[in-house]
Amino acid sequence: MLIRSEFDIQFQLPAPITMLAMLDLHPSVDALAREVTPLVVEHVDGGQMSRLVTEKYQDSYGNRCSRVHLPAGAVRLSGSNVVEIDGMPDLMKIDAQQAEVRDLPAAVLPFLLASRYCEVDRMCGLASDLFGSVPKGWLLAVTIRDWVHDHVSFDYNSARPTKTALDLFTERVGVCRDFQHLAITLTRAMNIPARYVAGYLGDIRSPYAGAGDFSAWYEVFLDGRWWTMDARHNHPRIGRVLMATGRDATDVAITTTFGVANLTHFYVESNEIDGDGNLILPQGHPEASIAA
Amino acid sequence: MLIRSEFDIQFQLPAPITMLAMLDLHPSVDALAREVTPLVVEHVDGGQMSRLVTEKYQDSYGNRCSRVHLPAGAVRLSGSNVVEIDGMPDLMKIDAQQAEVRDLPAAVLPFLLASRYCEVDRMCGLASDLFGSVPKGWLLAVTIRDWVHDHVSFDYNSARPTKTALDLFTERVGVCRDFQHLAITLTRAMNIPARYVAGYLGDIRSPYAGAGDFSAWYEVFLDGRWWTMDARHNHPRIGRVLMATGRDATDVAITTTFGVANLTHFYVESNEIDGDGNLILPQGHPEASIAA
Amino acid sequence: MLIRSEFDIQFQLPAPITMLAMLDLHPSVDALAREVTPLVVEHVDGGQMSRLVTEKYQDSYGNRCSRVHLPAGAVRLSGSNVVEIDGMPDLMKIDAQQAEVRDLPAAVLPFLLASRYCEVDRMCGLASDLFGSVPKGWLLAVTIRDWVHDHVSFDYNSARPTKTALDLFTERVGVCRDFQHLAITLTRAMNIPARYVAGYLGDIRSPYAGAGDFSAWYEVFLDGRWWTMDARHNHPRIGRVLMATGRDATDVAITTTFGVANLTHFYVESNEIDGDGNLILPQGHPEASIAA
Amino acid sequence: MLIRSEFDIQFQLPAPITMLAMLDLHPSVDALAREVTPLVVEHVDGGQMSRLVTEKYQDSYGNRCSRVHLPAGAVRLSGSNVVEIDGMPDLMKIDAQQAEVRDLPAAVLPFLLASRYCEVDRMCGLASDLFGSVPKGWLLAVTIRDWVHDHVSFDYNSARPTKTALDLFTERVGVCRDFQHLAITLTRAMNIPARYVAGYLGDIRSPYAGAGDFSAWYEVFLDGRWWTMDARHNHPRIGRVLMATGRDATDVAITTTFGVANLTHFYVESNEIDGDGNLILPQGHPEASIAA
Repeated sequence: MLIRSEFDIQFQLPAPITMLAMLDLHPSVDALAREVTPLVVEHVDGGQMSRLVTEKYQDSYGNRCSRVHLPAGAVRLSGSNVVEIDGMPDLMKIDAQQAEVRDLPAAVLPFLLASRYCEVDRMCGLASDLFGSVPKGWLLAVTIRDWVHDHVSFDYNSARPTKTALDLFTERVGVCRDFQHLAITLTRAMNIPARYVAGYLGDIRSPYAGAGDFSAWYEVFLDGRWWTMDARHNHPRIGRVLMATGRDATDVAITTTFGVANLTHFYVESNEIDGDGNLILPQGHPEASIAA
Repeated sequence: MLIRSEFDIQFQLPAPITMLAMLDLHPSVDALAREVTPLVVEHVDGGQMSRLVTEKYQDSYGNRCSRVHLPAGAVRLSGSNVVEIDGMPDLMKIDAQQAEVRDLPAAVLPFLLASRYCEVDRMCGLASDLFGSVPKGWLLAVTIRDWVHDHVSFDYNSARPTKTALDLFTERVGVCRDFQHLAITLTRAMNIPARYVAGYLGDIRSPYAGAGDFSAWYEVFLDGRWWTMDARHNHPRIGRVLMATGRDATDVAITTTFGVANLTHFYVESNEIDGDGNLILPQGHPEASIAA
Repeated sequence: MLIRSEFDIQFQLPAPITMLAMLDLHPSVDALAREVTPLVVEHVDGGQMSRLVTEKYQDSYGNRCSRVHLPAGAVRLSGSNVVEIDGMPDLMKIDAQQAEVRDLPAAVLPFLLASRYCEVDRMCGLASDLFGSVPKGWLLAVTIRDWVHDHVSFDYNSARPTKTALDLFTERVGVCRDFQHLAITLTRAMNIPARYVAGYLGDIRSPYAGAGDFSAWYEVFLDGRWWTMDARHNHPRIGRVLMATGRDATDVAITTTFGVANLTHFYVESNEIDGDGNLILPQGHPEASIAA
Repeated sequence: MLIRSEFDIQFQLPAPITMLAMLDLHPSVDALAREVTPLVVEHVDGGQMSRLVTEKYQDSYGNRCSRVHLPAGAVRLSGSNVVEIDGMPDLMKIDAQQAEVRDLPAAVLPFLLASRYCEVDRMCGLASDLFGSVPKGWLLAVTIRDWVHDHVSFDYNSARPTKTALDLFTERVGVCRDFQHLAITLTRAMNIPARYVAGYLGDIRSPYAGAGDFSAWYEVFLDGRWWTMDARHNHPRIGRVLMATGRDATDVAITTTFGVANLTHFYVESNEIDGDGNLILPQGHPEASIAA
């Protein structure tokens, strides 16, 4: 199956600023990529676009990062890619085992610890109250995921940059990243390593659910490998395209700006395409009939 | 100058647990080491000590870490080392420049971000209120350090594992690590990279200040390198011996336990020695007269 | 000057609930009232309105409160009043004195203490940092008010029911009630009693500032009496009509619901009228030209 | 049964301050009082005690309050009383009914709301998770009380003045007042009015449990009256002597100081006495054998 993902994000800047961005595909996806236009940053000056130099580097998690110095005025970030995936829904393994902390690979140990949005240290008691009697392993991981899904409502207007897992636990309303932060925190509190993921997740072979956006999900470490989990969409989905992983949204921010950047345009889409590059739009997509 | 540091920490465990420890010297200190007994973990069973296997690994910051599985009962962690240092107080460079974010090495960028105990995102406004008019660079860094020192009282009884920089800012009383967390957070908020450090800091050529402990300080990135800062002891000190660095005390915990461990004994000392290995105790040390 | 205020608020209820409301004028305004239709609560059933019984009581602050049991379906709360006021802007007294705590009337002492949204205990250090050198009395009170005004942005979308003074201090964006909570907290921290006020504040003899809403402001106790302060609109205004006062928005909630109530309609207006009852709309009001 | 309670608390003051105190018996206990020495405040100057004038007033909850201006130096607060009580343990009524909010007396409605230490608004979801399936009324009230008792450890060293119900819920270790704040918050979240109580509770006909202190408990409103609950001592006790009630410890602080007061001496005892005034000390009291 072919998936085409693309974005076009624009900002108006009152003054020059530096921006960090994680808008390229994760190196682990390279083998699947059929076409890639990495992040392009342009300055729009009187109708003319001039391309800005972006510095590329990898962070300690192996994510592809960009740093770019932006002049005042209008700027545009864009990119696109086509990946070929097997088209299978998220894998499940209901007998996946939870290793003891003594037996985990050292590299995954940091994903048991607290981080900015994941106050593991403050939620251990609670996690134990809620999940202490659930059998360890896969069942524990999905029980936590589903608990979050069932106890939190989604509302775009409830987003705020400082909202932590504990905040969400008390407020019970949040956006994608908040759902995952709460699930990650409770999962770590039960001694299963969990990490945050940013990527594309279109409504592929699913009903159209509204204008596109980047998505967040998370991964849990069981049976010696990472498995995809998603507390917002807690049933197996097709077509996740990985961009970055880290401890939480601090590590994996689509953009981090040092100064004021006012968002003026935001377009993200991720859709199936056929072999000729024609879009296969989800049922209910406003342009679906045109495409048909 | 020779510094001898050593520790002996004992726990009583009701049940077996896994422990992570950062109790060895940092690799950057290796060239200075004259004698090293790395972490030894022993189980005390009926008066008999049996040595436990510790797994050694490095984390993503380059720190030496140990993982050990501890049986129920009494356990003892110990180690010691002698390092030869130049005996100079902490370096100062009053004209050290603050690079723009665009010019910082990519590897230090994570030390501008928020972390568990350092809510940079919640303290930017405040940092700007307090320090927005201070000239950038060295002066800004030490102004923040001294502000924290002057506005916070030290009290061992105020320690708690969940206390963040914002908590300390509101409560104004804390321990070593809290002082550093607040200073780190305000420093990052002003766009100077800052990282947390754990190590030994004895009362070397300073008046005796009480029973020994591990110490925490921090480092700021100016003029292309890291400089030692300490919001608790904000005058140049002699004899810091580095053990680990990271984003905050979550990354750099002396011990992290997965289960219950009751501390029964705690001894840490770091003192100057002469060429024959004799202790040069600080003035006022309870055993100073004996040594003399 | 005559001020006409009115509201019409509607909810859809999935199930019966009890609601507490503070939607009548404060008893202290009775002498100014020329016409009053106290709160009317109606149930809308198939196009037919039936009036519901409301129980009236006063709380310990002397506010007029209503309790009403609402059936499932559509309900409407409405009321209106005309008051005659002197038309003077908020009073100022630049030499108003701040009494020592020992000399304050006992009845105002609770307004020095912390409350749900006003963490005085957590903000004393900060208040002292910011305002410790400002002369006591009127100047201190208005310095705090103006500091809040100048450091916080208004954004309706940033409203949330759990936001406290400390939250606003860190987030720097809020709504009316948040501005007042922060100012109240800092004012109490400097030992000036401060209380929260809810009421009407139309754009009277001010440019039209958008659709009407209830307003919040606060009062400080100086020179033996309460004075109006407003950290959102920090210049003297005309036409405040008092509904309720208390320690913070917990005490003075327009409505408190025990169960789910979905807001479907919200209309509040407060405008000057002439002797014949004709509206004198503010400059820029969408209907101003029609009225003229 | 006769209970003799007394206290002697001393402070050293670097500078004059004003203090509010709630150290007298509650008016509701007057009918039981056999001997009362209300709060006496003295200044100790060079070995000489001079009595300071205290102003008495009642707050809006009906508590007896005192305000006193204290000069710099050493001050002593003392008082004592003997009350005659029936000697029955705390009442229980296992079929006590929980009124609907619509049917509660208006005067108890404020005890459903959030207050400084009781973030009802942040804990409703949680309360519903934990207790949503428990039958309303007495069983719900004691289930909450016992849950808090069973999930929180007591530790004097964990006390801090800013600790809220949510903090305790995450930290799981606290003192008397913290236990009650958490229980009160969860109880209110389930629509049972709950209020905070301060008073004496000696180890009467109970094993000696250490040096005396004031105690905190709480009351819930069921069957049209208030019932004693205690999440710290969750079995019926004998000999509670009421001093003050309010929404939380902000309203009912033994002392509130406006300035620095260093505690130098703290003695509180509450014991049974016989008809001749002889102490009947609890089993295990250090002076019990002497008394025998």
